[in-house]
Amino acid sequence: MTESWLPSLITETPEEGYDLAMKLARKAVGMTQPDAEIRKKLRPIYANNPDSLTFASQVVAINFQTVAAANNYWK
Amino acid sequence: MTESWLPSLITETPEEGYDLAMKLARKAVGMTQPDAEIRKKLRPIYANNPDSLTFASQVVAINFQTVAAANNYWK
Amino acid sequence: MTESWLPSLITETPEEGYDLAMKLARKAVGMTQPDAEIRKKLRPIYANNPDSLTFASQVVAINFQTVAAANNYWK
Amino acid sequence: MTESWLPSLITETPEEGYDLAMKLARKAVGMTQPDAEIRKKLRPIYANNPDSLTFASQVVAINFQTVAAANNYWK
Amino acid sequence: MTESWLPSLITETPEEGYDLAMKLARKAVGMTQPDAEIRKKLRPIYANNPDSLTFASQVVAINFQTVAAANNYWK
Amino acid sequence: MTESWLPSLITETPEEGYDLAMKLARKAVGMTQPDAEIRKKLRPIYANNPDSLTFASQVVAINFQTVAAANNYWK
Repeated sequence: MTESWLPSLITETPEEGYDLAMKLARKAVGMTQPDAEIRKKLRPIYANNPDSLTFASQVVAINFQTVAAANNYWK
Repeated sequence: MTESWLPSLITETPEEGYDLAMKLARKAVGMTQPDAEIRKKLRPIYANNPDSLTFASQVVAINFQTVAAANNYWK
Repeated sequence: MTESWLPSLITETPEEGYDLAMKLARKAVGMTQPDAEIRKKLRPIYANNPDSLTFASQVVAINFQTVAAANNYWK
Repeated sequence: MTESWLPSLITETPEEGYDLAMKLARKAVGMTQPDAEIRKKLRPIYANNPDSLTFASQVVAINFQTVAAANNYWK
Repeated sequence: MTESWLPSLITETPEEGYDLAMKLARKAVGMTQPDAEIRKKLRPIYANNPDSLTFASQVVAINFQTVAAANNYWK
Repeated sequence: MTESWLPSLITETPEEGYDLAMKLARKAVGMTQPDAEIRKKLRPIYANNPDSLTFASQVVAINFQTVAAANNYWK
């Protein structure tokens, strides 16, 4: 049986929650472009484009909203 | 009687919820461009464009917010 | 007396809710460009552009958040 | 004394709420470009561009989330 | 002691809340481009571009969600 | 043991919350482009582009929603 890549939205700390938000953001990219080789080639394109970086940060921010709410903001 | 493509927002696990978010994202694309042949031709365009991939991930993120809230974050 | 195009946000099923989200997305387009003939001419442009399709899906996703919350996620 | 352009977020119906969301979207445009003559000249540009129309619809969708929540979804 | 530019999210009226949302939107711009002279030069560029105006309105809309929630929608 | 860059979402004031939202926005950029030298070179590009500045403000706005909710809007 394969382990789930997303067993839970609960994390111990906000920092781990932020990492999970990043993971969620990358997952949809990998599901849309499953070829890791192609994704690797695209990396220098967006990693050197300021708007692409902001865009990446935006998707993390949206996912972080979800993770933070799931964890009741670690309060 | 046709089965609904969206009988419920409830899923057993976060991972299934993420898959549902992806399904929701693709549904509106299919409703806007119903021709599967055309959608297939467009696929290599966005699958090789980093910003298009980020954009796809963003829509999944927005839908995942909805699905996660519906499932009370699987808590 | 004209019937409202939006009498309620309540729908019987999630699928109907998704259709309503699509309707909400299109309504603002129609209010901004009221000429149906022009909208018809624009259709093949965005229906063949992958980012335009993702964009359309994004607006549906935002509206679906609203409709789903209004329906308490059909729970 | 000038009447407020936004005395309340409460509306009687969802349709009026949608109109208010549209008004909110246009207000920030007017505050950023206060010259009505220029806004009028820009109108045919975005009203004939499908992505601009989707973008306009997106901002209405975000504002409609706010208005709908304020009205407890007119339940 | 310097007065805070953001002492509170609470405002007396929805209109003041909208103004605060605009202020929040502009603050991040000022923090990213602290040179007021450059910001002034950029102004005619985005103030004459319809998509830039819509974009500005979108950020106000997102901030207005926050301010409206903070004020319990002025109910 | 390394100190966390994000020990908590709780801040004393709204202004500190806004600064944290900015920090969250920048963090994902740094995780996507870890080379500080490259990020420094990209800075004048987006800092002189009005849409890039609006985009940066948008991501701060999304993160500020999260931080503000975590702090119960500092009420």
